[in-house]
Amino acid sequence: MPHKFINEIEPGQPLSDIYIVKDPILRSTTKGDLYIAMFLCDRTGQLNARMWQASEAIYKALSKPGFVQIQGRSELYQNNLQIVVNSVSVVDRSKIKMEDYLARTDKDVEKLFTEIQEILGKVKNSDVKLLLKEFLSDDELMKSFKNAPAAMKLHHSCIGGLIVHTHTMLKVADFILPLYPKVQADLVLAGVFLHDIGKTEELDYDMVFSYTDTGQLIGHIAQGLLILKQKADSLAAKGKQIDKTIMDSIGHIILSHHGQYEFGSPKLPATAEAYMVNYIDDLDAKVWQVTEAIENETSDSNWTAWQKSLETKIYRKRIEQ
Amino acid sequence: MPHKFINEIEPGQPLSDIYIVKDPILRSTTKGDLYIAMFLCDRTGQLNARMWQASEAIYKALSKPGFVQIQGRSELYQNNLQIVVNSVSVVDRSKIKMEDYLARTDKDVEKLFTEIQEILGKVKNSDVKLLLKEFLSDDELMKSFKNAPAAMKLHHSCIGGLIVHTHTMLKVADFILPLYPKVQADLVLAGVFLHDIGKTEELDYDMVFSYTDTGQLIGHIAQGLLILKQKADSLAAKGKQIDKTIMDSIGHIILSHHGQYEFGSPKLPATAEAYMVNYIDDLDAKVWQVTEAIENETSDSNWTAWQKSLETKIYRKRIEQ
Amino acid sequence: MPHKFINEIEPGQPLSDIYIVKDPILRSTTKGDLYIAMFLCDRTGQLNARMWQASEAIYKALSKPGFVQIQGRSELYQNNLQIVVNSVSVVDRSKIKMEDYLARTDKDVEKLFTEIQEILGKVKNSDVKLLLKEFLSDDELMKSFKNAPAAMKLHHSCIGGLIVHTHTMLKVADFILPLYPKVQADLVLAGVFLHDIGKTEELDYDMVFSYTDTGQLIGHIAQGLLILKQKADSLAAKGKQIDKTIMDSIGHIILSHHGQYEFGSPKLPATAEAYMVNYIDDLDAKVWQVTEAIENETSDSNWTAWQKSLETKIYRKRIEQ
Amino acid sequence: MPHKFINEIEPGQPLSDIYIVKDPILRSTTKGDLYIAMFLCDRTGQLNARMWQASEAIYKALSKPGFVQIQGRSELYQNNLQIVVNSVSVVDRSKIKMEDYLARTDKDVEKLFTEIQEILGKVKNSDVKLLLKEFLSDDELMKSFKNAPAAMKLHHSCIGGLIVHTHTMLKVADFILPLYPKVQADLVLAGVFLHDIGKTEELDYDMVFSYTDTGQLIGHIAQGLLILKQKADSLAAKGKQIDKTIMDSIGHIILSHHGQYEFGSPKLPATAEAYMVNYIDDLDAKVWQVTEAIENETSDSNWTAWQKSLETKIYRKRIEQ
Amino acid sequence: MPHKFINEIEPGQPLSDIYIVKDPILRSTTKGDLYIAMFLCDRTGQLNARMWQASEAIYKALSKPGFVQIQGRSELYQNNLQIVVNSVSVVDRSKIKMEDYLARTDKDVEKLFTEIQEILGKVKNSDVKLLLKEFLSDDELMKSFKNAPAAMKLHHSCIGGLIVHTHTMLKVADFILPLYPKVQADLVLAGVFLHDIGKTEELDYDMVFSYTDTGQLIGHIAQGLLILKQKADSLAAKGKQIDKTIMDSIGHIILSHHGQYEFGSPKLPATAEAYMVNYIDDLDAKVWQVTEAIENETSDSNWTAWQKSLETKIYRKRIEQ
Amino acid sequence: MPHKFINEIEPGQPLSDIYIVKDPILRSTTKGDLYIAMFLCDRTGQLNARMWQASEAIYKALSKPGFVQIQGRSELYQNNLQIVVNSVSVVDRSKIKMEDYLARTDKDVEKLFTEIQEILGKVKNSDVKLLLKEFLSDDELMKSFKNAPAAMKLHHSCIGGLIVHTHTMLKVADFILPLYPKVQADLVLAGVFLHDIGKTEELDYDMVFSYTDTGQLIGHIAQGLLILKQKADSLAAKGKQIDKTIMDSIGHIILSHHGQYEFGSPKLPATAEAYMVNYIDDLDAKVWQVTEAIENETSDSNWTAWQKSLETKIYRKRIEQ
Repeated sequence: MPHKFINEIEPGQPLSDIYIVKDPILRSTTKGDLYIAMFLCDRTGQLNARMWQASEAIYKALSKPGFVQIQGRSELYQNNLQIVVNSVSVVDRSKIKMEDYLARTDKDVEKLFTEIQEILGKVKNSDVKLLLKEFLSDDELMKSFKNAPAAMKLHHSCIGGLIVHTHTMLKVADFILPLYPKVQADLVLAGVFLHDIGKTEELDYDMVFSYTDTGQLIGHIAQGLLILKQKADSLAAKGKQIDKTIMDSIGHIILSHHGQYEFGSPKLPATAEAYMVNYIDDLDAKVWQVTEAIENETSDSNWTAWQKSLETKIYRKRIEQ
Repeated sequence: MPHKFINEIEPGQPLSDIYIVKDPILRSTTKGDLYIAMFLCDRTGQLNARMWQASEAIYKALSKPGFVQIQGRSELYQNNLQIVVNSVSVVDRSKIKMEDYLARTDKDVEKLFTEIQEILGKVKNSDVKLLLKEFLSDDELMKSFKNAPAAMKLHHSCIGGLIVHTHTMLKVADFILPLYPKVQADLVLAGVFLHDIGKTEELDYDMVFSYTDTGQLIGHIAQGLLILKQKADSLAAKGKQIDKTIMDSIGHIILSHHGQYEFGSPKLPATAEAYMVNYIDDLDAKVWQVTEAIENETSDSNWTAWQKSLETKIYRKRIEQ
Repeated sequence: MPHKFINEIEPGQPLSDIYIVKDPILRSTTKGDLYIAMFLCDRTGQLNARMWQASEAIYKALSKPGFVQIQGRSELYQNNLQIVVNSVSVVDRSKIKMEDYLARTDKDVEKLFTEIQEILGKVKNSDVKLLLKEFLSDDELMKSFKNAPAAMKLHHSCIGGLIVHTHTMLKVADFILPLYPKVQADLVLAGVFLHDIGKTEELDYDMVFSYTDTGQLIGHIAQGLLILKQKADSLAAKGKQIDKTIMDSIGHIILSHHGQYEFGSPKLPATAEAYMVNYIDDLDAKVWQVTEAIENETSDSNWTAWQKSLETKIYRKRIEQ
Repeated sequence: MPHKFINEIEPGQPLSDIYIVKDPILRSTTKGDLYIAMFLCDRTGQLNARMWQASEAIYKALSKPGFVQIQGRSELYQNNLQIVVNSVSVVDRSKIKMEDYLARTDKDVEKLFTEIQEILGKVKNSDVKLLLKEFLSDDELMKSFKNAPAAMKLHHSCIGGLIVHTHTMLKVADFILPLYPKVQADLVLAGVFLHDIGKTEELDYDMVFSYTDTGQLIGHIAQGLLILKQKADSLAAKGKQIDKTIMDSIGHIILSHHGQYEFGSPKLPATAEAYMVNYIDDLDAKVWQVTEAIENETSDSNWTAWQKSLETKIYRKRIEQ
Repeated sequence: MPHKFINEIEPGQPLSDIYIVKDPILRSTTKGDLYIAMFLCDRTGQLNARMWQASEAIYKALSKPGFVQIQGRSELYQNNLQIVVNSVSVVDRSKIKMEDYLARTDKDVEKLFTEIQEILGKVKNSDVKLLLKEFLSDDELMKSFKNAPAAMKLHHSCIGGLIVHTHTMLKVADFILPLYPKVQADLVLAGVFLHDIGKTEELDYDMVFSYTDTGQLIGHIAQGLLILKQKADSLAAKGKQIDKTIMDSIGHIILSHHGQYEFGSPKLPATAEAYMVNYIDDLDAKVWQVTEAIENETSDSNWTAWQKSLETKIYRKRIEQ
Repeated sequence: MPHKFINEIEPGQPLSDIYIVKDPILRSTTKGDLYIAMFLCDRTGQLNARMWQASEAIYKALSKPGFVQIQGRSELYQNNLQIVVNSVSVVDRSKIKMEDYLARTDKDVEKLFTEIQEILGKVKNSDVKLLLKEFLSDDELMKSFKNAPAAMKLHHSCIGGLIVHTHTMLKVADFILPLYPKVQADLVLAGVFLHDIGKTEELDYDMVFSYTDTGQLIGHIAQGLLILKQKADSLAAKGKQIDKTIMDSIGHIILSHHGQYEFGSPKLPATAEAYMVNYIDDLDAKVWQVTEAIENETSDSNWTAWQKSLETKIYRKRIEQ
């Protein structure tokens, strides 16, 4: 039986399916009975759920978050859909069809990573080379880099989204750099590769996409700078001091890549390299958003619904080829 | 003897050189004597000038604007440098070294135009093809397109600047379009080619760069849309009706290519193609501005002077190759 | 039996009435049965509707949009009201009480048009006269001018709204121009008459109010300029070249009449005439909005509900006469 | 001999003329000699001046500000023009041609005041009538109202400017109110009359235009509200309590008449009457600014210089009548 | 039986409890039957209610607003919860547990007032002393000062909120003034005490919190200035003229204490004292908002829900002591 | 002979004094002669200088920057004052009266540091204690902390400015924290101490105040976070892992202490502690700016000159004590 997706549930339906339980809390009613308040989620969204007649044992057995098989029923409560859970049992992760719970890119991530290494292989400056190698050889970081989404919602919000986004940006940069011989290609390539590296720590993407506490308090821009510093420190500990101008220039690209203060960049671009990374990032993110909006539109209209982040509807009609 | 450039003149110098006279006015002093107030210009700037003991005959002989050989002297007047002109005589344009008066790109404009035609040759949609041909075969418009500057000041402000800017943008588009298969290449190529076509009418660039009255009142964005409509009308008159979706989509790219209302776009981008033209335009313009700022800096500092339009100084130090 | 208005329908009611069907789509359920998803509308709003057990024949018979007699029932679905349609039959337009479906001004449109012609008859400049005559004698355009709404929602959003708005503005202009003898009356009168002429193409108002594709992509401001150009071209074709200063000045009024970039004007007012049209337009639109808000308020409070576009509630209490 | 205006003085000229002395300070040099630093002003501007070899007696004799006959000479000091004063003597005000020192409207102020009273005579509500009478019969306030400028710089910055501005606005209101029968005419007329009444206290305009301390700290908007309250209090003391709705509505017009928070209005318009006063004010002020800019332009260009407060140049070319 | 709070009511429940009735309106159905539309409120919110089969007598008996005992039932209507009232009877205020209907500070208001008087007792300037005494001895105003909330929603929105807020601010000022000896302590203390005095007139807080008409049209900032003027006038009437610089300085603090135009201050701070009051106000208000958000959060998350006015979620995790 | 300050030099004076030479460049004239372009500075400003007839030897002898005794003369060149240098000789730093060249606080820095340590001694949380100790025991960093200015221009721009600013803020925090028992005092104290620690690396203040390259590209906000991380890393290396919540919370205070995106904070305050540091910082900085503006005003006016960063003039008149 196929998974019943959260966004397909209507009021008054019996439910018997596997969902992710998130933020469960054990509470007592005014009469003193225990119940569990929680969210049930999959890749399409989340719903409030209540399990009445719960016990501390049931509550303790739950992973937070974790996969659970539930029996229950959907209801309207104060005009909102919620799920009343009758029974709940923990399900082993190995039995899960993960793609029902977390969107994942359909691109071949290892192939993208190989191509990224090839493009970065064109870097000539020895210090930039060293620095990139320090990143590329950090297996744990690269594993995160291959799995992280590029954003919570706006674009590339899927497992592998970060590497897909970075890969396309590197190809764009590689294509157009010959047209701009005065722009320092090594800095642009390193800057593109590292501009969103802080996303590996900003977002949690094990079962659901969410900000980590550090991600929310510090943000991927400053976190990226910290990771860059850490790599330079670890090279320095090995006796390889990265040139200060290079550190400043790459750090500046990371800090300024949102292009405007109101988008969270504490510095405006002050080099041609920083401008280039800023616009390539914008281009790739906006084209993704527009494309997604067009593909997700379910009506037959020439226009998508209003896109809040773009302050417009998107025109869907295509010209003849 | 080399031309004495306007920005090299110091107070108290005798002057005997050729300048462009601009906005001459015949006035009378309180005593009733006639004098001429005017500007003298070359590619480096302009200065106020006064010719006392003038006559209506002298005034009438002046082209407005035009080249003149002047004899005179530089002075401080109310703390501003001005030129007191003793004699003035009209100079034939054939005797002028034009590059002293108007900056001109050092690129081969005809070669750029050939390459532009080659890239536009990749367009597949028959209506877009027709439309582009209508533009490319308008010799007078193409002559303007090859000569116009891309902007008064900010970027590519030289004779030929518009075609240089458009050519680079087309190459960028041509390079990166294969990375974005869902973006309609024909519209992007046409949109890049036409996004600034209104500049041919917005700016005057015969002797000095200035806005035309229409340019200032209507602006190159709306002027570009009018030219597009005119070409479609002239095709329609020949029995070839351009598809409405194509007209809307290209018109929309022209209108939205500044990306934000406060930069004079009456519409925000609402298609992937419009976003792409917007960012490629920004990228090319900003890289030019940064590069120019670095090259024009005369100090040895690691930083240029403050760049008002970029809201920052520019960092000039380069990493080792 | 009076028409049951969309905004009066409550859940669980049987329905037998005529509505406009909009955007119908034929779809199949997971079991393969065909159904039609559509909107049902009248002047008070629209609701989602579903006709289960539909057929391709039924779908094809529907005008899109068009008037239909439906039998059905209102329901709550995912907390939203929707209509389940049991049967649907096309209704001839001649049988419709149009005022139930499209709000229409209660002013005498032909009388307004006569008065507009009288006021425009005061224009003295021969070129402006010619231009206005070219507009006034374009019967099709004038028919649209008499029928178009002045806006989708904010003000004068009814059939005839554009001419009502323009008529009042012309009377205001006509009254106050004698107080400002240095302001060029001919340009103000022509500018007021034409400032929103692009609305005739921006909005669709045959059965429901909506933006046309061109309206959304190009906008009434740029469309107005195109229509102005078209009229001048057609005069030119008849050998009557309109003076360039006049074309620039009227075009500038159209482009700048929203007064600020963020309201979609690509040019800020740069003439007294443009300022005058801008403020008269604002005045008439805002007074309409305030008046409507006061009249539509159903509570007895001294204040209307929050008016999002005005960023305030409106005070309704009136002083004694 | 005609007055030598401040803006006509060039460096190195002997001077013997009457100016206003402003902000004189008695100081001693490092050697202990006394000198007076001061400004010399007329209607065209002001210049720094120094009188060396001054004495306490000379200093004490000066009105602050006051008219003085000076003998001296113009000089450049640190690139700024200043005047070195050799002798100074107080001049009786009766000997002064005041129009050289303070710009004054050329309109007949008493006639304007009569017309204002006529228009206000149309008010029907008895409380509004009472309130207006309380203002009109306050001779001292009305004297200020007839003399105050309407602004320091932007518009109507001349003696009598406030009444000229208010008079035109009242005529506009009187003309257009019949077009808007739902707008409460009494409130609009009172609101226009009183919207800038605080200017009588915000600005000093006895010899030179400047802000009073209260004007700068409190501002004409809040000052206007205080004056309104004061009049109502004085009526209440006579047993005539003005209706609260009327007080709130007129107070609201005064507070909101700048239309936007960033222009110093602590409240946005929340009544049709407030919107009407706001736009009529804007219209009259902007038309004045544009007209002034055109008339003050000394070049023959089609465009004025850049107008900072309007964010544009102004187009000066007029069409044929 | 404990009060059933408005925010605890679910659809389909029988209700028999005391609520505040607000804005009742007597209307007739299409059939001519009378019914009453009204709101029922307590401290947790309000709901729409309808009493069918009403009569003019029932309607007239209702206080507007007032306490009523109702019998009825909760229902969903157009997806919104509403209450159908079967019977209604007026309840005497003496029988009410007021804390169920209006939140009240749990601080000892009289003690706070004593401490406020002690701190204000440190003022040295005799005119400021006089002015403060005039306020402190106005028993009616001080009663309002002790009861008014400090804001409708954002912070200290409870009976007594204004005095709690003012008291804390005075203690902050008293603590830190010794660190800033150049700041005029008397003005800061008076400014803090009076900065929100207009709230006593801006808000209605007898049964429910709401803006008065004057509050909405004029606002507490301008109202505060009017009260200040009134006190000075009443002192002047007793022969005690308050120094103009003091009036200007305190008035300026009141006007500028929101710190920015867009927050409703018609003047930006122009004295050290105004800056100090502005920041102490912001500090106390924001710490309250953050603390409230943390305490009101019902989930176990490390983060509160999104706080619209702060443009962020709030981090709730505390460090170990 | 006292030092002739840069801002006291007038055109046409002979000069023989010691200045700091900055950014010297060796250039050749069109004729091939060598000359040195440089700036001469002291605490009051800087002037362009030219030494004609220079040699490579002279150029090489100059420290860049360094103290030099010059002989020369002041001149006007293109309306700007510049210095023509005839001879230049390097001066040993030991002979310099440093206070002529760099403004220094007149507070006792060591005493301030002792008091800072006392206040920080109140911290209770053991991890925060450890972290602070790691900073306080870094002698080199603390030396910088005692010498750095707090800003280039706006406030506390003197040697020692950073510690003076931090010290006052700590005293304010220490005074008011008891009033806010729910705010975590340890985090506020640590946050205040560290909020501007990045200034030690952002600014160069050895001879003149200027931004370092890193300061301009990365900024003191991100630099502060890097220093915090570095200290935690060095503690971790000693086996003392600082709690993540503490690191996040203090890092967040550093990042958000400018309070708004447009002031360079990449995160808005999301804790009560962050808000408190933000407002105490603003308060101390703004009071300093206002006080400085008042004290530096040389006129006798009640108002200072326009303060660009405060968008107002400052009122200087004080009330009687």
